[in-house]
Amino acid sequence: MTGGATAQPDGAAARTRVRRLPHKQVHDVAARDALLRDALVAHVGVGLGTQPLVLPLAVAPDRGDGEDGDGPFERLLLHGSTGSRLFRALAEGAPACVTVTALDGLVLARSRFESSMRYRCLVALGRCEVLTGRAAERGLEVLTTHLLPGRTEARPPSRKELAATRVLALPLSEWSLKVSDDGPEDDPADLDLPVWAGVVPLHHVWGEPEPAPDLPPGLPVPPYLATWPGGRT
Amino acid sequence: MTGGATAQPDGAAARTRVRRLPHKQVHDVAARDALLRDALVAHVGVGLGTQPLVLPLAVAPDRGDGEDGDGPFERLLLHGSTGSRLFRALAEGAPACVTVTALDGLVLARSRFESSMRYRCLVALGRCEVLTGRAAERGLEVLTTHLLPGRTEARPPSRKELAATRVLALPLSEWSLKVSDDGPEDDPADLDLPVWAGVVPLHHVWGEPEPAPDLPPGLPVPPYLATWPGGRT
Repeated sequence: MTGGATAQPDGAAARTRVRRLPHKQVHDVAARDALLRDALVAHVGVGLGTQPLVLPLAVAPDRGDGEDGDGPFERLLLHGSTGSRLFRALAEGAPACVTVTALDGLVLARSRFESSMRYRCLVALGRCEVLTGRAAERGLEVLTTHLLPGRTEARPPSRKELAATRVLALPLSEWSLKVSDDGPEDDPADLDLPVWAGVVPLHHVWGEPEPAPDLPPGLPVPPYLATWPGGRT
Repeated sequence: MTGGATAQPDGAAARTRVRRLPHKQVHDVAARDALLRDALVAHVGVGLGTQPLVLPLAVAPDRGDGEDGDGPFERLLLHGSTGSRLFRALAEGAPACVTVTALDGLVLARSRFESSMRYRCLVALGRCEVLTGRAAERGLEVLTTHLLPGRTEARPPSRKELAATRVLALPLSEWSLKVSDDGPEDDPADLDLPVWAGVVPLHHVWGEPEPAPDLPPGLPVPPYLATWPGGRT
């Protein structure tokens, strides 16, 4: 019943079993990785004492050091300031929850009760590993390539900038994926109601690039922006 | 330094002070409420023992029982199954973090280090109140009106459906809002680099409604769908 790509200890399996609407749980690593390719942001939760804190962070999936093949992703990369409370807790190995959600539409059933959302949601549990040295530099390159595909011309980080940046990796060893991509699942008794039912898709599309006010004249919009994949969230 | 609309105890103030990039903290209740009007989903975190769990939930802002005016919102409404682990913990008064994020674009600076995102993010801390009886019914109406504006024709919940649904309210008493709506903030030394800089906006737009496969012929797409506000996340 768990979504792990690899064998998981029993405790881990129980923790990531989807309890609500379990038929929506998906064990397909390809579906998980498709969501991760679209993901720009994860919501990362840690406990600060008894108070959970949830913040949105840029995220990139990764295959691990030196692997640029096309196998399943092995971990999620995060980066942030060494001065951040959240990052300090994550770096100290606090139990974390990294949730990646794509909202794909609203599902309009004949009843309010069955109305819902079309979405994909990955929940990954675990503790982050701190990347340092060359692994941290490589992690930042993976993040840039994922978040800003094609943007090789931006100035790479200086020593000082690298020192101010914490790079973390959460192994994808304990995770679950829930996908709701159907239409309305109305109660049979409601099917004859004179109420329109269906799905209103929500699309995420790039707009027209806005040049910085201080951009010198003559610098064209980079051509790779026109090829950025839509649907990213 | 806090974002509360009302006076907050000192401890609360400290908990919601933005520490990273504090110049991005916004204390404007109107900006907060504009984000909440666009919000379809919140990421809700609770601790299950030492393990935080973060799940996306439908959300609606509310002015409190019986107030339908245009003053500031007073609380966030959530609904879910009475059988859900997360909802059980929330209903028992576990400390919660409800985070609402809108990703509005990517900021391309001349350096990778200064590249970032255009976003708005509300973090609300507190404990949820369980709504029952008429207050719960009203809460569900507020949720439907917010999530599916105009959809008055859907069948209202039955007694049994109401009994299976938990409705919770998180007071907006301890919150912070962070808004990043600028362009790139490049290091002065980078301004002469021959690198395009600016913002690529991300738009969230409704697609063409998809009728349910079992929809009887002759039921037109509801006209209110054409007026749904864009930009919702």
